[in-house]
Amino acid sequence: MHSVVEALRAALPPHTVATDAETLDRLSHDDAEWADYGLPAAAVFASSLDDVVAAVRLAAEHGVTIVPRGAGTGLSGGANATSGCLVLSLERMTRIIEVDAAERYAIVEAGVLNDDLRRHVAAHGLWYPPDPASQAISTIGGNVATNAGGICCVKYGVTRDYVIGMTVVLADGSIAKLGRTTAKGVTGYDLTGLFVGSEGTLGVIVDVTVKLRPLGGREERAIVGYFRTLTDAGRAVAAVTEAGIVPSALELIDRTCLHAVARWQGWDLPEDANALLLAKVDEPGARGEELAAAIEAHFRTAGGSRVERAEEPAHIDQLFAARRLAYPALERLGPVLTEDVCVPRGAVPEMLARIEAVAADAGIVIANIAHAGDGNLHPLIIAPEGDDEAKARAKAAFDRIVDDCRALGGTVTGEHGVGLLKLLGAAEELSPVVLGLHRAIKHALDPAGILNPGKAFPNGD
Amino acid sequence: MHSVVEALRAALPPHTVATDAETLDRLSHDDAEWADYGLPAAAVFASSLDDVVAAVRLAAEHGVTIVPRGAGTGLSGGANATSGCLVLSLERMTRIIEVDAAERYAIVEAGVLNDDLRRHVAAHGLWYPPDPASQAISTIGGNVATNAGGICCVKYGVTRDYVIGMTVVLADGSIAKLGRTTAKGVTGYDLTGLFVGSEGTLGVIVDVTVKLRPLGGREERAIVGYFRTLTDAGRAVAAVTEAGIVPSALELIDRTCLHAVARWQGWDLPEDANALLLAKVDEPGARGEELAAAIEAHFRTAGGSRVERAEEPAHIDQLFAARRLAYPALERLGPVLTEDVCVPRGAVPEMLARIEAVAADAGIVIANIAHAGDGNLHPLIIAPEGDDEAKARAKAAFDRIVDDCRALGGTVTGEHGVGLLKLLGAAEELSPVVLGLHRAIKHALDPAGILNPGKAFPNGD
Repeated sequence: MHSVVEALRAALPPHTVATDAETLDRLSHDDAEWADYGLPAAAVFASSLDDVVAAVRLAAEHGVTIVPRGAGTGLSGGANATSGCLVLSLERMTRIIEVDAAERYAIVEAGVLNDDLRRHVAAHGLWYPPDPASQAISTIGGNVATNAGGICCVKYGVTRDYVIGMTVVLADGSIAKLGRTTAKGVTGYDLTGLFVGSEGTLGVIVDVTVKLRPLGGREERAIVGYFRTLTDAGRAVAAVTEAGIVPSALELIDRTCLHAVARWQGWDLPEDANALLLAKVDEPGARGEELAAAIEAHFRTAGGSRVERAEEPAHIDQLFAARRLAYPALERLGPVLTEDVCVPRGAVPEMLARIEAVAADAGIVIANIAHAGDGNLHPLIIAPEGDDEAKARAKAAFDRIVDDCRALGGTVTGEHGVGLLKLLGAAEELSPVVLGLHRAIKHALDPAGILNPGKAFPNGD
Repeated sequence: MHSVVEALRAALPPHTVATDAETLDRLSHDDAEWADYGLPAAAVFASSLDDVVAAVRLAAEHGVTIVPRGAGTGLSGGANATSGCLVLSLERMTRIIEVDAAERYAIVEAGVLNDDLRRHVAAHGLWYPPDPASQAISTIGGNVATNAGGICCVKYGVTRDYVIGMTVVLADGSIAKLGRTTAKGVTGYDLTGLFVGSEGTLGVIVDVTVKLRPLGGREERAIVGYFRTLTDAGRAVAAVTEAGIVPSALELIDRTCLHAVARWQGWDLPEDANALLLAKVDEPGARGEELAAAIEAHFRTAGGSRVERAEEPAHIDQLFAARRLAYPALERLGPVLTEDVCVPRGAVPEMLARIEAVAADAGIVIANIAHAGDGNLHPLIIAPEGDDEAKARAKAAFDRIVDDCRALGGTVTGEHGVGLLKLLGAAEELSPVVLGLHRAIKHALDPAGILNPGKAFPNGD
């Protein structure tokens, strides 16, 4: 194994290759609790396309597997190291290469943080909508590799909907420039789309071309409401959808989560507060007012109590505090394993009821935040630190939630990716024929299997 | 060759296999002028998934190539027959399998006409936006195979943006169910997206799951204006874009086209009418009024004359008549070869100027309609029937337009697909590495090369 490290050191600029224990430990896994990982042989901190090409070529020559990595904020183990691998970090590739305001696109290196892209293009009057909860700390490269979602995708779509091109280093070290900068284009297969969400298994994404929207013309209005039952909250979501309203956010927080936040923050919840719905609309002027009023009315009709409205950013932030505080409130109770199932919108109350039953059976805490407007749930499964039995029950609960989601017509991962945590679920969801397609494409593009092996789909290796 | 026909007749229901000259002639090509085609050995009119599976299996067994086909309205030769092939027509597969209004999706067979899908889901209060000009006669399967665009995609996206799943019969006759019905989902590679726009080269699309939007909440307002120069019209488009306005249509019609329509219809054009811009916005109420007024002002400031507004559907239709009549007006002059280049929005005036120069040099008529808001131009190249020299000059003009589009940073096909007509252009646009990726994926999924060989990308065969 020394030989590849020596070769990398010889080929790459100084301070690019690391083998110290602290660095390797930091780079050996992402933010997925309980996903397995091994110890890398080395890490390369690429600063340029050339660095990535050199690293991939040398790894390929030496038969060393490569695990590409952005900020390591993933929640499915997709960036977890395999033993003896080369971790290829893109975190130093933070250049914003181009912003074209007239054509409304930006070209950025993979290591640019989501929020940095957002801020940078805002100065040009443009908006990059995809807003994963990790936006302050996750990279565009990682967002693209996992096809990250977020809160506003109920109206504005996910990462995939904004990626129109990229530069990828393939398994043999060759460079593929994919896609276009024009508004439309259908020349050849949509390889850009194939690489979005491929979790580093087909190539290393070095830069990305994203299309942008105008920043202006929106005015946020928030509507929140507490509900006595999940069914009432579910009826409110259905009523909003049936009315043809497409909110720019429609989030649900369940009882467990709500009470964890309230206890922590000393909040006084309404009696029988078993679910909280948080909605936003962003149409400007009278139309926004009309839609916000309609959502408020639907919340009340469905049985919502303490239904409130806000237009000022500070007030909106205050109403949405429970969403923001949910994760840290739960983390106080122990390590949090974040689930990510997606069911039909109408099945959200049933799915939440099933998750409550799973939690009760397992004797563990499972709290829920959900992108209700998309049917995308994030059960937060908690087992107290050091309690191995609880951890085993938590893992079993995780599997039961996946099964329940499938039974309701759902998909095992809505936006976090398969990584390592959802390999079993993906094997259930994808038919043998579809798995065969995955293997054929993976083999065609990476015949030696050196790129992030064992992630994204069950490869049967 | 008889043996495959006999085998197909034995395996398929009565009236499914055709070999008569009239049928084979009708099915031997699409609507692309001047693209080569051969004579098929037989045609299969599939009525079910089983029919498609049986046809593909038997063709594969007999080593006969398969050319899948919807309504044959394509404009790039993508559905043109190769000699001795089996044409696999999906035109009888017209079932709308499911519409789920609560979850906002529909599952339809490949042979459903775009307008039929549109009408059907409208009865459920839903809207399928992609609106290729062929919407009354083209099938969803064909729309998906070519990733069709349309007028409203400047705001609402192209076919790809609505396809979330499909059933595909692969080259070995196996059935792949791809995608999902949930709002989000990232389980495995985005194979659905890979098949969108793959022009029948990777599998036969049998049914498609499309996501839908609410039908309501929109109110159309049209704004049209004549311009003395293409540059003025280009400045108007740029001003609308820079103002952060995203119209629901932004079409341009050039002088040649305008005068052909005016002569035919006896219209009186404003003096020096060298370009016509047609815009729509669809925001309801005061916001729509504000945006329409802003576009009107931008049109006037850029030098537009006879700038008009309309809100009544009949009046909008009247203002947009020139767009509707452009193609038939040109067809009166001879066979029309429809180009489909896409350049940066800002390069539209320059590209149109170059096309004028190409037409003058070649001594032929080239008229232009353009999705100006997307930078997607459709030069309509006309050579009088029977004039072989003019036809040769027209073909050379076609190639020069492709070169000019590339020189301006464009892509050789915006929405019609590569088919046969853009193989040379695609070979220029796609690097050897990217072509290698196409070949690797094609070979992985169709090792014998029986599915629509020679289309979609230059395969080097």
